[in-house]
Amino acid sequence: MAKSVGVFGATGYTGREVVRLLSAHPEADVAFTTGTGAGHLAHEAGLERPADAYFLALPHGVSARYAEGLRQRFPHAVVVDLSGDLRLPTAAAYREWYGHDHPAPTLLGKTPYGLTEVYRDRLIGARLVSNPGCYATSVLLPLLPLLRDRLVDPGDVVVDAKSGASGAGRSLREELLFCEIQDDFSAYAPGRTHRHVGEMEPLLTEAAGQTVALTFCPHLLPVKRGILSALYLKTHDQPATLAAALVDFYGETGFVRVVDAPPRLSDVQRTNDCLISVHAAAPGRVVVFSAIDNLVKGAAGQAIQNLNVALGWDEALGLPTAAPVKLAWPMAPR
Amino acid sequence: MAKSVGVFGATGYTGREVVRLLSAHPEADVAFTTGTGAGHLAHEAGLERPADAYFLALPHGVSARYAEGLRQRFPHAVVVDLSGDLRLPTAAAYREWYGHDHPAPTLLGKTPYGLTEVYRDRLIGARLVSNPGCYATSVLLPLLPLLRDRLVDPGDVVVDAKSGASGAGRSLREELLFCEIQDDFSAYAPGRTHRHVGEMEPLLTEAAGQTVALTFCPHLLPVKRGILSALYLKTHDQPATLAAALVDFYGETGFVRVVDAPPRLSDVQRTNDCLISVHAAAPGRVVVFSAIDNLVKGAAGQAIQNLNVALGWDEALGLPTAAPVKLAWPMAPR
Amino acid sequence: MAKSVGVFGATGYTGREVVRLLSAHPEADVAFTTGTGAGHLAHEAGLERPADAYFLALPHGVSARYAEGLRQRFPHAVVVDLSGDLRLPTAAAYREWYGHDHPAPTLLGKTPYGLTEVYRDRLIGARLVSNPGCYATSVLLPLLPLLRDRLVDPGDVVVDAKSGASGAGRSLREELLFCEIQDDFSAYAPGRTHRHVGEMEPLLTEAAGQTVALTFCPHLLPVKRGILSALYLKTHDQPATLAAALVDFYGETGFVRVVDAPPRLSDVQRTNDCLISVHAAAPGRVVVFSAIDNLVKGAAGQAIQNLNVALGWDEALGLPTAAPVKLAWPMAPR
Amino acid sequence: MAKSVGVFGATGYTGREVVRLLSAHPEADVAFTTGTGAGHLAHEAGLERPADAYFLALPHGVSARYAEGLRQRFPHAVVVDLSGDLRLPTAAAYREWYGHDHPAPTLLGKTPYGLTEVYRDRLIGARLVSNPGCYATSVLLPLLPLLRDRLVDPGDVVVDAKSGASGAGRSLREELLFCEIQDDFSAYAPGRTHRHVGEMEPLLTEAAGQTVALTFCPHLLPVKRGILSALYLKTHDQPATLAAALVDFYGETGFVRVVDAPPRLSDVQRTNDCLISVHAAAPGRVVVFSAIDNLVKGAAGQAIQNLNVALGWDEALGLPTAAPVKLAWPMAPR
Repeated sequence: MAKSVGVFGATGYTGREVVRLLSAHPEADVAFTTGTGAGHLAHEAGLERPADAYFLALPHGVSARYAEGLRQRFPHAVVVDLSGDLRLPTAAAYREWYGHDHPAPTLLGKTPYGLTEVYRDRLIGARLVSNPGCYATSVLLPLLPLLRDRLVDPGDVVVDAKSGASGAGRSLREELLFCEIQDDFSAYAPGRTHRHVGEMEPLLTEAAGQTVALTFCPHLLPVKRGILSALYLKTHDQPATLAAALVDFYGETGFVRVVDAPPRLSDVQRTNDCLISVHAAAPGRVVVFSAIDNLVKGAAGQAIQNLNVALGWDEALGLPTAAPVKLAWPMAPR
Repeated sequence: MAKSVGVFGATGYTGREVVRLLSAHPEADVAFTTGTGAGHLAHEAGLERPADAYFLALPHGVSARYAEGLRQRFPHAVVVDLSGDLRLPTAAAYREWYGHDHPAPTLLGKTPYGLTEVYRDRLIGARLVSNPGCYATSVLLPLLPLLRDRLVDPGDVVVDAKSGASGAGRSLREELLFCEIQDDFSAYAPGRTHRHVGEMEPLLTEAAGQTVALTFCPHLLPVKRGILSALYLKTHDQPATLAAALVDFYGETGFVRVVDAPPRLSDVQRTNDCLISVHAAAPGRVVVFSAIDNLVKGAAGQAIQNLNVALGWDEALGLPTAAPVKLAWPMAPR
Repeated sequence: MAKSVGVFGATGYTGREVVRLLSAHPEADVAFTTGTGAGHLAHEAGLERPADAYFLALPHGVSARYAEGLRQRFPHAVVVDLSGDLRLPTAAAYREWYGHDHPAPTLLGKTPYGLTEVYRDRLIGARLVSNPGCYATSVLLPLLPLLRDRLVDPGDVVVDAKSGASGAGRSLREELLFCEIQDDFSAYAPGRTHRHVGEMEPLLTEAAGQTVALTFCPHLLPVKRGILSALYLKTHDQPATLAAALVDFYGETGFVRVVDAPPRLSDVQRTNDCLISVHAAAPGRVVVFSAIDNLVKGAAGQAIQNLNVALGWDEALGLPTAAPVKLAWPMAPR
Repeated sequence: MAKSVGVFGATGYTGREVVRLLSAHPEADVAFTTGTGAGHLAHEAGLERPADAYFLALPHGVSARYAEGLRQRFPHAVVVDLSGDLRLPTAAAYREWYGHDHPAPTLLGKTPYGLTEVYRDRLIGARLVSNPGCYATSVLLPLLPLLRDRLVDPGDVVVDAKSGASGAGRSLREELLFCEIQDDFSAYAPGRTHRHVGEMEPLLTEAAGQTVALTFCPHLLPVKRGILSALYLKTHDQPATLAAALVDFYGETGFVRVVDAPPRLSDVQRTNDCLISVHAAAPGRVVVFSAIDNLVKGAAGQAIQNLNVALGWDEALGLPTAAPVKLAWPMAPR
């Protein structure tokens, strides 16, 4: 029998995508949605509704309170929080990067980070999962295995990332109007100022075994969906060696795949795939491209993937991919 | 009395932009255009037409022969070549980057490179000018002064550049169709493979006084016009120091201006401006953004600017800018 | 066991969409494709390959010859021709609208026109089907039932249609370059000059029982997919009466559905749906909007729908829709 | 000496365009702007500032009060109101179309309607001008002369209009977000419900000498600037006759020009031009296309044109056009 699922914040772009993807999921039924407008419950009312699983697509600062409330009321249910509330390790780090106190600090430090392919063994059986940020997903998937294997220099990691406008959500901000974005392009939060830096650095440092110096510049593309990140990395190895390490880590038939040519956004739009390529650059440097759909692998798709893992289902269940995904993983999780 | 100007290749995007800008130039009249279609001379016929100046917006491999022909027939005229034919220092370098022999090797090594603000003193009175590539313009304008002043490390220069589709010209290639570009984004020629690397490296090395290791990745934006380049540079100095060096070099009121926030493409589209900003990044690194319109400052506008300088006119004559340009330059060229 | 399918012309936008949709079809396997590039057979080689069904996504003037060849070699197979070759009733009409002689005139007059919902009873068991044009589909679906029911005046039908750029195919024509379409909009083939006028008028006249005067102006949108047609019709009835007649004809749960608000392209993109709305206008006039995806309902999707009907399968098999399609049709075809 | 100009509402798209165009006007200097943000006066403060002319780019319901205040304080100044407040003939009509009482009803009925080329003789010397709506401009310019000359049937006028998103202004409405418009297209306010119907019908009726039945459907394009309207008209005459009547009315060298092929938005973007073409359709019908830039000829450009006329200046002063405008008008106004 299908599991019942509640979706909080189903009128934003992320929550809408969760509902859309769940409609094609063979084992999950949407029991209710919360949000503004007809047909949606108020968020508070959702806290009263028993279900097998919940997705929280709410603003940060709000989301963790709902996570806490659901954990208390329905301890057997799986809760996947798509906000940034549970991604940082400490309340101090949260205050630094989000500018206000954490709404539910007791949840920090024990909620697994749902970068599925990397932390799968921490997610099996989990009842609360923190879903990664979209930029963080696009950067960590290629970078963590390379740092773990000591293939790239942690002392100088440069990332130039570009995202479609749905990454900024459905908020009514002037800079998100059509006339401000179409036929235009710009950088924002340059250097080390974007919140996802705070999310990525502890994980990078953990993988590298030493402090990682990250330069990260996001850009806003006149595109609806998709993130393409370029990672400029120092290495003593050949691009082929790095590519082989990634294939070794992710396999050849999962959502994360290594390709020869630089991936295009259209290769991954509307899929849960992450495509990665590795190329030679100036001596001692390589450039690694990583492409995802920010609303799917960068948010709603990975959230469902995490639910699948938490419940012990086939990890690819109900998720779109451009290539048939054949998972050898459940046999040999890493 | 206005000078007469011939435009070769006036039906491509670059040539069309030359004609469009010249129509607003108070001292230049278009005497003839060559190209395909009604109202244009055949290219060969243009070689018979005396004029005071010529712009060559022809394909590389073809353009230099016309430059040579015009130099022989009309030695007093100013010829500005907008192709890549005269940008590299030697025939060997040309063969390496363009894949075929140079059509007029005797012109190499003595044609000044028309990056106007940097090489202005070589351009005054010139009768043949090689107009820079669009990517090269966006990178060299911020980078050359910083290398000259020893403010950044020449050993590790990373550039992530993004261009609108008009930069690829009006050629009938499948990857330039609307359905291949809109709502999409991708990298190409990654690492050190784009021709403009061959154009930039000798000039960077000359400025730095030592070999510069350049990593350069261009991307194709779903935008008509504009290039935004992000330069990731190593430095022992503060961003403000680098910004001040650039203001010192370019002044405050010319086409090349230093701004506080990362420039948007819409700030420079349809202008001859180059806007530059400098920001802190990971320790020891800064990111420098540079924005131009690839068809104006990156091609037709700079070509006209070079004509203005060659003829001793006010350098800004007839050129669009978002800010009133007040030139102190002719008094104190660098 | 799944049926084997060959796709001719699988490298154009339409053929590629046929392959993409077939990959999700539970009862059909792509046996081979023809086209340019690696992995595709030459078209001629496809004629030697036995299969249960063939889709022809070839240029007009070429396609009918392949239809004829396949009919002769494999008379039991189903052939769906997506070109314009078999849409007109006579060789004379073809010559008038296409400007050259018909390549296989014996096929004319006996090949059913695959506007599925309207001509379903002619399509059951068919072995050769002519798939409708994309504009024609968007116009005929709302218009034919209204003419049949004598609800609108055949003497004055005005259609203003707008299509995404993929409707023009993947051909290398300058007017299809990104820089010619993005941020732009224009009409073409105004009045009564577009080929689909020749395709629509005989069918409109048949439905109305008298000559229909059609004014038809197509426009090119800076959009990848989708057609929105506005039909300005004269009537003595209320909009609600016309809407009810359409619901009566198409049912409430099929691909063709009547909605209250004017449909947006995003409502139908990537689906086989056609959404229609009817609104009051000046006295004696109504405006009817009709939205489809030109590559799906306007081409590849309807072609597969026609295959499903020809083979007696569930008509909706393997086809995407924004609403769950519950077909009462096979019981009561019209 | 240049005239001083105040711009109210200079932070919206229209007001910003007024400021942008005035910066190129040789006889006008912007004395102050009102709006939100640094560098702008509060609207109320603008009422205290003497100037030679004022542009009101304020919301309807607000604008007329400022018009009234400026008229009282500075009776010799020219005030051009770009809102809809002064476009309708009566307070009753205003209440019907705008849904609330008129803020300054004494101004109605005596403020000339600034469709410059048509009502020029009413504008010379005017001290208060009501600037037309953008859609209305695109429709009335081709239609009024044809109705006056009895060349088209007033009993059945169908207009299908498409506008870029800047026409909806810079307001924070969800439907104006980038992700809601890009790669999409839709109709709104169908039939006879858009406010510009209330603006156009009295003027059409005046020109025709009888009631005109107008069907008008606006659409939202994924484009920044430009309106393309298609007018479907009944006539007993040939397209060439109608085209000749328009050339006769507007001349050949003004902003309003008749062209052979359907005009593209890119032909008029960033100009004050209106391009019109006339084409055959079904028997007894023609289609007329009309293209303008909604922010220039449809708003800011025509407002400046009206100022030029009111002050007796060359009508084209400071206004961009794709063709050199040679005005014979001041000698022979119509």
